[in-house]
Amino acid sequence: MSSLNKKFPLLLPDPIRKNVGVADLIDSTFKAYNGGRLAEACRLFSQKMVAGKGVVGMSLTGALTPAGLGRSAIVPLMKAGFVDWIISTGANLYHDLHYGLGMKLYAGSPFLNDVQLRHEGIIRIYDVLFDYDVLLDTDAFVREVIQAPEFQKAMGSDEFHYRLGRYVHERERKLGIKETSVLSAAYQLGVPIFTSSPGDSSIGMNVAAMALRDSQLLIDVNRDVNQTAAIVYDAKSSGATSSVFILGGGSPKNFMLQTEPQIQEVMGIEERGHDYFLQCTDARPDTGGLSGATPGEAVSWGKIDPDNLPDCVVCYTDSTIALPLLTSYALSRVAPRKPKRLYERRDDQYQTLRAAYFKHGKIQKIDHRTDLSKAKTKSKPKAKTAPKRGRSGRSVTGTKRD
Amino acid sequence: MSSLNKKFPLLLPDPIRKNVGVADLIDSTFKAYNGGRLAEACRLFSQKMVAGKGVVGMSLTGALTPAGLGRSAIVPLMKAGFVDWIISTGANLYHDLHYGLGMKLYAGSPFLNDVQLRHEGIIRIYDVLFDYDVLLDTDAFVREVIQAPEFQKAMGSDEFHYRLGRYVHERERKLGIKETSVLSAAYQLGVPIFTSSPGDSSIGMNVAAMALRDSQLLIDVNRDVNQTAAIVYDAKSSGATSSVFILGGGSPKNFMLQTEPQIQEVMGIEERGHDYFLQCTDARPDTGGLSGATPGEAVSWGKIDPDNLPDCVVCYTDSTIALPLLTSYALSRVAPRKPKRLYERRDDQYQTLRAAYFKHGKIQKIDHRTDLSKAKTKSKPKAKTAPKRGRSGRSVTGTKRD
Amino acid sequence: MSSLNKKFPLLLPDPIRKNVGVADLIDSTFKAYNGGRLAEACRLFSQKMVAGKGVVGMSLTGALTPAGLGRSAIVPLMKAGFVDWIISTGANLYHDLHYGLGMKLYAGSPFLNDVQLRHEGIIRIYDVLFDYDVLLDTDAFVREVIQAPEFQKAMGSDEFHYRLGRYVHERERKLGIKETSVLSAAYQLGVPIFTSSPGDSSIGMNVAAMALRDSQLLIDVNRDVNQTAAIVYDAKSSGATSSVFILGGGSPKNFMLQTEPQIQEVMGIEERGHDYFLQCTDARPDTGGLSGATPGEAVSWGKIDPDNLPDCVVCYTDSTIALPLLTSYALSRVAPRKPKRLYERRDDQYQTLRAAYFKHGKIQKIDHRTDLSKAKTKSKPKAKTAPKRGRSGRSVTGTKRD
Amino acid sequence: MSSLNKKFPLLLPDPIRKNVGVADLIDSTFKAYNGGRLAEACRLFSQKMVAGKGVVGMSLTGALTPAGLGRSAIVPLMKAGFVDWIISTGANLYHDLHYGLGMKLYAGSPFLNDVQLRHEGIIRIYDVLFDYDVLLDTDAFVREVIQAPEFQKAMGSDEFHYRLGRYVHERERKLGIKETSVLSAAYQLGVPIFTSSPGDSSIGMNVAAMALRDSQLLIDVNRDVNQTAAIVYDAKSSGATSSVFILGGGSPKNFMLQTEPQIQEVMGIEERGHDYFLQCTDARPDTGGLSGATPGEAVSWGKIDPDNLPDCVVCYTDSTIALPLLTSYALSRVAPRKPKRLYERRDDQYQTLRAAYFKHGKIQKIDHRTDLSKAKTKSKPKAKTAPKRGRSGRSVTGTKRD
Repeated sequence: MSSLNKKFPLLLPDPIRKNVGVADLIDSTFKAYNGGRLAEACRLFSQKMVAGKGVVGMSLTGALTPAGLGRSAIVPLMKAGFVDWIISTGANLYHDLHYGLGMKLYAGSPFLNDVQLRHEGIIRIYDVLFDYDVLLDTDAFVREVIQAPEFQKAMGSDEFHYRLGRYVHERERKLGIKETSVLSAAYQLGVPIFTSSPGDSSIGMNVAAMALRDSQLLIDVNRDVNQTAAIVYDAKSSGATSSVFILGGGSPKNFMLQTEPQIQEVMGIEERGHDYFLQCTDARPDTGGLSGATPGEAVSWGKIDPDNLPDCVVCYTDSTIALPLLTSYALSRVAPRKPKRLYERRDDQYQTLRAAYFKHGKIQKIDHRTDLSKAKTKSKPKAKTAPKRGRSGRSVTGTKRD
Repeated sequence: MSSLNKKFPLLLPDPIRKNVGVADLIDSTFKAYNGGRLAEACRLFSQKMVAGKGVVGMSLTGALTPAGLGRSAIVPLMKAGFVDWIISTGANLYHDLHYGLGMKLYAGSPFLNDVQLRHEGIIRIYDVLFDYDVLLDTDAFVREVIQAPEFQKAMGSDEFHYRLGRYVHERERKLGIKETSVLSAAYQLGVPIFTSSPGDSSIGMNVAAMALRDSQLLIDVNRDVNQTAAIVYDAKSSGATSSVFILGGGSPKNFMLQTEPQIQEVMGIEERGHDYFLQCTDARPDTGGLSGATPGEAVSWGKIDPDNLPDCVVCYTDSTIALPLLTSYALSRVAPRKPKRLYERRDDQYQTLRAAYFKHGKIQKIDHRTDLSKAKTKSKPKAKTAPKRGRSGRSVTGTKRD
Repeated sequence: MSSLNKKFPLLLPDPIRKNVGVADLIDSTFKAYNGGRLAEACRLFSQKMVAGKGVVGMSLTGALTPAGLGRSAIVPLMKAGFVDWIISTGANLYHDLHYGLGMKLYAGSPFLNDVQLRHEGIIRIYDVLFDYDVLLDTDAFVREVIQAPEFQKAMGSDEFHYRLGRYVHERERKLGIKETSVLSAAYQLGVPIFTSSPGDSSIGMNVAAMALRDSQLLIDVNRDVNQTAAIVYDAKSSGATSSVFILGGGSPKNFMLQTEPQIQEVMGIEERGHDYFLQCTDARPDTGGLSGATPGEAVSWGKIDPDNLPDCVVCYTDSTIALPLLTSYALSRVAPRKPKRLYERRDDQYQTLRAAYFKHGKIQKIDHRTDLSKAKTKSKPKAKTAPKRGRSGRSVTGTKRD
Repeated sequence: MSSLNKKFPLLLPDPIRKNVGVADLIDSTFKAYNGGRLAEACRLFSQKMVAGKGVVGMSLTGALTPAGLGRSAIVPLMKAGFVDWIISTGANLYHDLHYGLGMKLYAGSPFLNDVQLRHEGIIRIYDVLFDYDVLLDTDAFVREVIQAPEFQKAMGSDEFHYRLGRYVHERERKLGIKETSVLSAAYQLGVPIFTSSPGDSSIGMNVAAMALRDSQLLIDVNRDVNQTAAIVYDAKSSGATSSVFILGGGSPKNFMLQTEPQIQEVMGIEERGHDYFLQCTDARPDTGGLSGATPGEAVSWGKIDPDNLPDCVVCYTDSTIALPLLTSYALSRVAPRKPKRLYERRDDQYQTLRAAYFKHGKIQKIDHRTDLSKAKTKSKPKAKTAPKRGRSGRSVTGTKRD
């Protein structure tokens, strides 16, 4: 007789009954394969990531705001204090503007005739449809807003999105709509939003075109790199956990994870890595499609103390399925937290990191990581038999950089 | 201004609130991409497939019963009268026996050390774990049961599983457990269960080993091919719809879909194809991994009247996520139906098909489909502008054969 | 300084030059990710699987023969003595008939209008096109052939395909074509071809329809299960290696891998598992789409001696890319072998297995595997630090059963 | 009898023989599914994209340079004049530095114990391994180089990489190595290399850290957006074709494709879209994982004239397999072209675009596309029956923006 019953829960789900709530369904019947991972993700997020003062960063890729997930899930998570900072593709922020500006998107089909759509002036994002004017009006909105004096300088993308969010919020008020836009909600809640590829989106395209005129607006990428690292450093050095919640992958994922190597290896500051790691993706490591790769790789990069492997869950499923379920689960199981309003502390956090850097960093090659030998002696006995990733989330985090 | 607002619903989901029910969450926030497809699948199943006298066939591949989905979802769907017949891999039925025989499976992890597990006598199916004795005891159960006189003949797999299910049901009663096993529930509810690859599973392996002794048991594959076609023919010729609900793909999918070509092209009987098509899979047509391919291909195979394209939804996600959600949705939105107990009508259905075959079929090459020219004149005007698959499900069904 | 240089080859590929041969390109530039796996697969196949008397079983799923791979790759591999036995979906054998009967298939497109194709009487398999008559003529051929007296009995699918292959070969000769058909080549070379789902294909459909008349033909599934196990047992007990070469996955994969559990656990015969394992697939274990799952799982099933982990490579890519490359590599790097003509030894192999079964097997629950404790003491020191799968192929094989 | 033989080539591949060349193997046996797409990609690239003065942009995502593809394929393609400009992730350029600096990477395995690797100071990128010092030395190289006066300003990423490439080239010469580095080759050949996410990589991390000191280096994202558009505008307005060759997807893909909307919709300049589109990816549109989505979507975005749909091929396979094959095919089938040295024309191209913008663009909402009505009348008759994408490549290009 094995010791299975001591280590693992019995797999005997309840029969599904009518009118069950989302959180109960997940807890009672999502037991294995990606269903099991999604249940673990729900519990990791609810029980650990948003527990106490834990700081949660969220990265957004894929067509989330066009699919309505800004309004249905991301804004509610922000309002509940469950998302403290964000790195997004430009596309998700550009299409978020449509919602904030009261424009209309439609739930269409991926199987329409694109030539026909073109003739009718209809734009398609997979199965989301809208009029061509939605693009033109949004473009003009961006161009007009960034002519204001407050935009005539180089600035981090968090500052740019904060300032842009205020205009969106104003428009929402005039239109009498609310809770529609991630940018507007972020402005109101002080949630910093970064983008890892500031030129890559219609927002960036319009900013670039205006730079051919007299606009002085330029995204300060260096500030973004250091500011995101500063948020993580502030969390960790104040004793809070730092968690990453990754939807999709791509450049925003990598930008979020590289905060730890930026602190440790480039700046030479002793740090131990993100505490919790949660990803919903359909990308695969073996094809090179999973940008930043698996949490496992991160251990080899030396950012994780093998004795203290943080929790980690990767669920291979569509964000349009996983995110509403996870949001519903978290809102049902956990009371809202007071938003941290990290944007208001941005200069403080930045200066703190800068001071730490000047204390530890240097231009020449840094010395070998001191913790390597420490870890070696401490973790040896346990590491060998330990599972690579624990099912309840005890696992390696991803602090990969490239 | 386009006519989008007349053709498609606005994409403006509600913000997610706490304690929402599963069906409400799906209707209010699953709007696009695979989330949108899953919502369409829920509505297709609830509003059309199980409406009226509609006959629903379900095909099972992937490790569904090991993941607990037999007990949590498939048995409740059968009890609600929402699944009328089944084609399964042998593996799903073999592992279903563990549940019916009161054995213990555990929710483990996919990241365990298999060498270690081997030393401890633990079997792993991805993240499902159980003792080696579970295999040996299940094997012995199969071998002992099939020694009974009732098994000493060639028979269809539906008959074999029905007889086997009675033994499982007896064991359940002795153990004081219920609603644990698909085979037992199918026996009680008269739901025929077929397998498309009767030798491919531990059940088939034990049957084969006993055939080296004096066992006369042999699965009559021909009967299965004709019996499954007879179920579909009975549905369609009595005016009921015939729907397929495909979890995964593989040989069970193809076996279910080939019922229509068997009727039309091999037997020469005029018929029009399955009415509704619902699949959850992660396989892709371009790699050849999507066995039986997309519903679209079926039109070219001539089994679908282009004027009357039936509804069709393919959702690319894990069955361990989709099936509990879909089950919960259907049970919440639709009242149970009286089970059709198709197994009790198997000989009647078989004889009816046989008679129709003798009336229409021949051994030589059959004549060209008469409906080809009919369809040509009728469907031309509409077909050109029609979307390939309608979003509310108006689409092509899959009656592919190979 | 690490010891990397002692354990792993330098990753410094040559620049690609014009007119390089396939095998040289693979060896010199396929270094990592699935490219690296494909290079390992080529070397595993060429250097180990077909070395000496090694017996190679190949499983076929996905639309391989429709894509022309029967003629381009599978027949050449069989003729070179590199494939000794085959398990195929019925579909691959049915569509192989088109080639053997001199019918015409066309390289089309996956993006055609299926309604249009239907009107023109054109059948589509993804991007392969042919006339509707190809189906009808092939169906009639099958029905006419199986009326012969030699088909009026229950028989294994290997015997059925062998007898069918003779008719295809005759047709080829009449038409003056050759090397077009897998079935014909298998007949000529004595390569046994099994199918794991004999009812699931147009061949099985026509066999079933004829059974409604007076045909006595029935595939003896039990014989197939035992015969495939007999092939593996014969290889292993004669000191040869047993290798599996899996294209796709599905039921044929599982049927091929279950030969080892059939020998060991159902028949109670001491055996150690397949030696080499090679799979090209796009299915993933976490979604349940990878039937039979990864080689790793097989260790937990107790079929692999952890001290003697056989070589194993899984390459996640399309068979239509991998198979021509691998075939070209093997033919370029290894001299042809004399075909083993296993079909001619089928009764001997069957009787040998049967005798061994009567010596070791029993109906009641078999005793615990004796090798469990042996393995435990022997493998402990080495197993812990060994990589799960060696890059040059030293890895676990897949003898999973379900 | 259908007209298949008039429209499509017969699918009857030759049997594979030993020692065949890569290009011949592809032409003779890659006939369907992704194999067929890869053959089409080879022909599209060789016969159309690099024909005449055609300008080819290449986007790089996934771990291409770590896998050795910089040296084996990308540099040879650049030297043959087949790649005129590049958009890359920062990661691919950072890891390219290792090669240019003479550091050692090893072909390892994805199945190693990461905890063990960590103790030994070994870094893992999937199955590529190297010493921790490789990171530290590369970081120090970047920091030291960018202290030079030439880097003390805001500049486009093409300029930054050009200047950096000169240092790499110098190092190569000192080390006596050549053709190892994409950055060095680009410097020598005048191939502009952009990155869409300048902060997201170890290069960007080190640049950011130095900005905390006195470094004035800042990537001018606006310049990049406009410069890439200027390259495309220069090609198209001079009568040359503009092609995109996309490895993977992500932000670099989108950045490359948005050049057309930047020209047309943001700048108001009449243009018609990229001519040829070639992508190798494993991402899928339905999950939102395929950034920028399919070429089909682009038609609805109004950037493609439906009467003049350019060629387009998407091959779903691993770049580590596709790129060596495609490189080998192109080098074997086409004579090298003289490199265009576009970097040397960067200011001219930029000024030309700027002038065109001032002529056509405005800040307010631009008027509706004039070509919409033109296209409407012209394309109607043909568009309806045309296949969505032609198999020999006649298809829609991707000029999606977000």
